[in-house]
Amino acid sequence: MTAYMTRLEGRIRSLGTPALVGLDPRWNQLPAEITRGEMSPSTQRIAEGFHQFCTEIIDIVSTLVPAVKPQVAFFEQLGPAGMEALHHVMQYARSKQLIVIADAKRSDIGSTAAAYSDAWLDGTSGKAAFPADALTVSPYLGDDTLQPFLETAAERNAGIYVLVRTSNAGAAAFQDRKTEDTTVFEAVADTIQQLNLQHRGVGQWGPVGAVVGATWPQELADLRARMPNTPFLVPGYGTQGGSSADVAAAFQYGPAGALINSSRAINFAWRRPEWKDRFGEERWRDAVLASTQQMIMDLHRV
Amino acid sequence: MTAYMTRLEGRIRSLGTPALVGLDPRWNQLPAEITRGEMSPSTQRIAEGFHQFCTEIIDIVSTLVPAVKPQVAFFEQLGPAGMEALHHVMQYARSKQLIVIADAKRSDIGSTAAAYSDAWLDGTSGKAAFPADALTVSPYLGDDTLQPFLETAAERNAGIYVLVRTSNAGAAAFQDRKTEDTTVFEAVADTIQQLNLQHRGVGQWGPVGAVVGATWPQELADLRARMPNTPFLVPGYGTQGGSSADVAAAFQYGPAGALINSSRAINFAWRRPEWKDRFGEERWRDAVLASTQQMIMDLHRV
Repeated sequence: MTAYMTRLEGRIRSLGTPALVGLDPRWNQLPAEITRGEMSPSTQRIAEGFHQFCTEIIDIVSTLVPAVKPQVAFFEQLGPAGMEALHHVMQYARSKQLIVIADAKRSDIGSTAAAYSDAWLDGTSGKAAFPADALTVSPYLGDDTLQPFLETAAERNAGIYVLVRTSNAGAAAFQDRKTEDTTVFEAVADTIQQLNLQHRGVGQWGPVGAVVGATWPQELADLRARMPNTPFLVPGYGTQGGSSADVAAAFQYGPAGALINSSRAINFAWRRPEWKDRFGEERWRDAVLASTQQMIMDLHRV
Repeated sequence: MTAYMTRLEGRIRSLGTPALVGLDPRWNQLPAEITRGEMSPSTQRIAEGFHQFCTEIIDIVSTLVPAVKPQVAFFEQLGPAGMEALHHVMQYARSKQLIVIADAKRSDIGSTAAAYSDAWLDGTSGKAAFPADALTVSPYLGDDTLQPFLETAAERNAGIYVLVRTSNAGAAAFQDRKTEDTTVFEAVADTIQQLNLQHRGVGQWGPVGAVVGATWPQELADLRARMPNTPFLVPGYGTQGGSSADVAAAFQYGPAGALINSSRAINFAWRRPEWKDRFGEERWRDAVLASTQQMIMDLHRV
């Protein structure tokens, strides 16, 4: 089992939950306490707001969940100032013993894939430009383009999660194309499982994770059977409609079998019908805490 | 025809070449004049070197070719300082009337795809964090995930190029899976062509481009027939082995039918066997110029 999966499994066991909290900051949804109602903030000001918001979310959830998942697009949107904020948010999360999974869906060929790996993967030293414990990777370019990520991950005690069956409505368009004997996403799954059998060493979990949406429970169960040595990262729980029952199958081979992500339902909990009467905007921190605890309880059921 | 394709076609016609110069800076390959032989430069120093190198390449090629393609990974590798350098390189290229195609291969679902679009696409105003005229986009997540890119591109007079058949050796692994009646990459191609028929308006070229590798000439010719209203971006010429004959079919419907990219063979021309005797490292600018001219001549043949 890889150093990354050993660490992740230890955190999942000690905290007793596979809940993964996404960090998806959006200016027009931040608490007024942070935005102070500013309508035309500078990029620098937005970046500072994102940094404050994310570090506060981290403070609230760091003793409750094993990992956080910053969504890189929202920081990249702000340019260099946003990337600077992202860097500090990632470092802060690591200082709180959280495992950081950068949701950047990077991919490219050969030496360019190596450059992305160098930019993002760094499980222990923190020397990467953006020090993530793991990174999401897109497989479309081919199995050879996964190799540079796999090599850097091995060198740096980091992990990768390859997109297999995503959570969006249009996931079927290309992923579900039926080939000779499998669909495309099953072909991706088989490639990942083979890599994991080659590289896992002793223990259940190999180095290549899979992104499998909670919104497709049957496919999730089938993929668990198809790739028993592959750790899952499961988006689509909560706001997108996936339930704890929908993700139960992911844990067939142990508690480290999956991280279940929730982003908006936690980040902006105080805006949601179920919480906004109980907690007003000024108590947004309490809403974040309550929604995280509710997610943990909900996942305990399965 | 979209504003982006109208601009691109105008540039291709007036310069008389579809050559696209990639910007792929790597510290250990830069001229000693720029690195001054420094072995352990700071990130800031590397970013400054990348900025100097890329702006000099731009100075050399801006009157010869219609477009440049910065490879985002090499800048991202340097963290926020690299992204700052990239931003300035992109602005500089635009100030020289070059069309800038950001090779970032971004993709994600819904509002996250919208955030990436906002970060990168901006054909005219230059207000995006990273002001590109066009962006490369990965299709694996599904056709619905292309929509936010398409919408932002339309609003901002920008373009997108979706990965169809990539230039790497492992491209076949998933892209060539044979489905009921097409391969996966043909299914992606058909989706793009449909979008172009819906959105092109008057004229040949629709808003959604396709990345099609020069290393697979038969597939390139088939794809040209399959998607006659789709502008191509063609990597794999030069260092990766594609020749001008291999890409000839791309121009069946006019000179704006494709941009042919060369990155390393131009960026590091003075290191290559065919130039290094003629131009030493101290004449690296002349080698860049000569290799660009040679590429233009070579493409004129077809």
